[in-house]
Amino acid sequence: MTLLADTLARITSPDPAIARETQALLDGKTKPRGSLGRLEELACRIAAARGVPVPELPVKAVVVMAGDHGVAAEGVSAFPQEVTWQMVANFVRGGAGINVLARHAGAEVIVADMGVKQAVDLPGVRQVRVGAGTGNIAREAAMTRDQAAAALEAGIAIAQELAQRGVTLVATGEMGIANTTPAAVLAAHFTGASPEEITGRGTGVDDAGLARKVDAVRRALALHSRAAADPLDALARMGGFEIAGLAGLVLGAAACRVPVLVDGFISGAAALAAVRLAPAARGYLVAAHRSVEPGHRRVLAALDARPLLELELRLGEGTGAALAMHLVDAAVRILREMATFADAGVSDSGR
Amino acid sequence: MTLLADTLARITSPDPAIARETQALLDGKTKPRGSLGRLEELACRIAAARGVPVPELPVKAVVVMAGDHGVAAEGVSAFPQEVTWQMVANFVRGGAGINVLARHAGAEVIVADMGVKQAVDLPGVRQVRVGAGTGNIAREAAMTRDQAAAALEAGIAIAQELAQRGVTLVATGEMGIANTTPAAVLAAHFTGASPEEITGRGTGVDDAGLARKVDAVRRALALHSRAAADPLDALARMGGFEIAGLAGLVLGAAACRVPVLVDGFISGAAALAAVRLAPAARGYLVAAHRSVEPGHRRVLAALDARPLLELELRLGEGTGAALAMHLVDAAVRILREMATFADAGVSDSGR
Repeated sequence: MTLLADTLARITSPDPAIARETQALLDGKTKPRGSLGRLEELACRIAAARGVPVPELPVKAVVVMAGDHGVAAEGVSAFPQEVTWQMVANFVRGGAGINVLARHAGAEVIVADMGVKQAVDLPGVRQVRVGAGTGNIAREAAMTRDQAAAALEAGIAIAQELAQRGVTLVATGEMGIANTTPAAVLAAHFTGASPEEITGRGTGVDDAGLARKVDAVRRALALHSRAAADPLDALARMGGFEIAGLAGLVLGAAACRVPVLVDGFISGAAALAAVRLAPAARGYLVAAHRSVEPGHRRVLAALDARPLLELELRLGEGTGAALAMHLVDAAVRILREMATFADAGVSDSGR
Repeated sequence: MTLLADTLARITSPDPAIARETQALLDGKTKPRGSLGRLEELACRIAAARGVPVPELPVKAVVVMAGDHGVAAEGVSAFPQEVTWQMVANFVRGGAGINVLARHAGAEVIVADMGVKQAVDLPGVRQVRVGAGTGNIAREAAMTRDQAAAALEAGIAIAQELAQRGVTLVATGEMGIANTTPAAVLAAHFTGASPEEITGRGTGVDDAGLARKVDAVRRALALHSRAAADPLDALARMGGFEIAGLAGLVLGAAACRVPVLVDGFISGAAALAAVRLAPAARGYLVAAHRSVEPGHRRVLAALDARPLLELELRLGEGTGAALAMHLVDAAVRILREMATFADAGVSDSGR
């Protein structure tokens, strides 16, 4: 059995009885029932994912996967393609937004070259390259089915390694010039959204760039969407190396009962692909934030997920997911550290 | 000149030129312009409040003020009045929600008895009592004008002391059974909202309790709103000791150029009173979250403030403000720690 098939077979939904047990514990804390709102919901979700009513404080990692995209040739990004390589170098030097926010969250950062056009051969970059950039999805498949499986398995392997090292909360991050285009195509394929509603300005294309991007999304959808035989085929035809890698990370984490904070639009498209491959993976996902990218709404709706934060972010890299880590810590600490009505001698209203 | 008059005279608006300087620095960081959205806006606001383009990482305190309310006799709360005393004891033992979230934020907690019915004579509680609970605002004034001034000055003194000790970010918190009722009355007075739209369930009253509460708000408004000569008189007639104390805290912080994270509905009503006393204080306020309490929308609109978080909280104590402290830290760290395009050798799109 392959690592992918084995992982898909191992994923089972979190036990809702554990979430109920966690909620009962929260109801005994010195506060009106439910008054910590979505923080309580989050504590219950983390508990159920971990399989224990009172989970440990999370040990955290952000996995930033990078890849290049043939569709950049269609003029769909405001930045030149070499920026993917340059930003990966920035990640391993610790100067990027995700480095700052991961330090702030107390999370380690794992940087993986899943398929940057020119290999990023720098200390601290994991070389799990599947190819030197994908094919131009407006004209051809992004990758072969075997490449998609290899990228998924690279993500699964990283999740397994992190879980074995004791990591209990993973955030998804990505870097890849033009990668909002394959994300839009995949999101449209999985949700049925139109090219116009799913496509946004990414890092900031102008009106002409947006028109080119919508056109590229339309052509890619026409070429691949009906032809895609299954979710793996969809990832291969319309995805990207880092997108498939993140889908694998989600699957591997779910199989290890490690909850995943899903960052923005691109991570969301990857998570949606993962859930189409293994629906039970959904129970391990927490949507970190709603990005400015308009298609993100459709992705979140398809995941049936309400994001924790809405801060008008559109940077990617996992920055929104890293910001949400503090809320997960806060939720778990409430559960672990708050006094009960009985402990504190406080009168309970019973409501 | 009194401390109150002196403080009101010292408050001046933050300099917008500093916010522009901060934004220019953020625009040089390795990310598309503006792609960290509201985090960038927050960094600019903190910088302008502090009066320097690159502020230090904040030194943080949550000030939790407690008081009792005569209007509790109208049956407007789900909890008995002794819970105010019991929760103050819980605060100084470190077991309440605010203690957990302040520890998580790295903030100290200051607990002040502004006027609990029975004095909370426990180590760690600041005795700045103005009275033993307020009058029942549905039938009489909450306090005298002198008491309101004394409560404001107690808050100002705490803000000054914190600023002198090097605190550079303050959060507001409160505890007081029935205090959503005076907050609703004050909010209706200042915003023109009706009793029905401004009044919510607080800690969780049932339908009959909500009807009693709307009626108490209506009676208090009829008795005091037209009669209130100025914002100080409004606080005296319709407020509470902890509400006036928090308004003073806001004024004192603004006079010391210390930004204030404003918690939920009750803190919001206090902040609104402060802004009516000194409009320039507005520039030092950051709305931490939008609470479940329906009247909070009107308060936020009157403050012209967009909250950072929306997590369906309704606990008070400063819990939402403590949660938002991490976002302030993150915003300042982005400004201080991220590499620039030039440092990192990353190509800039110029947009």
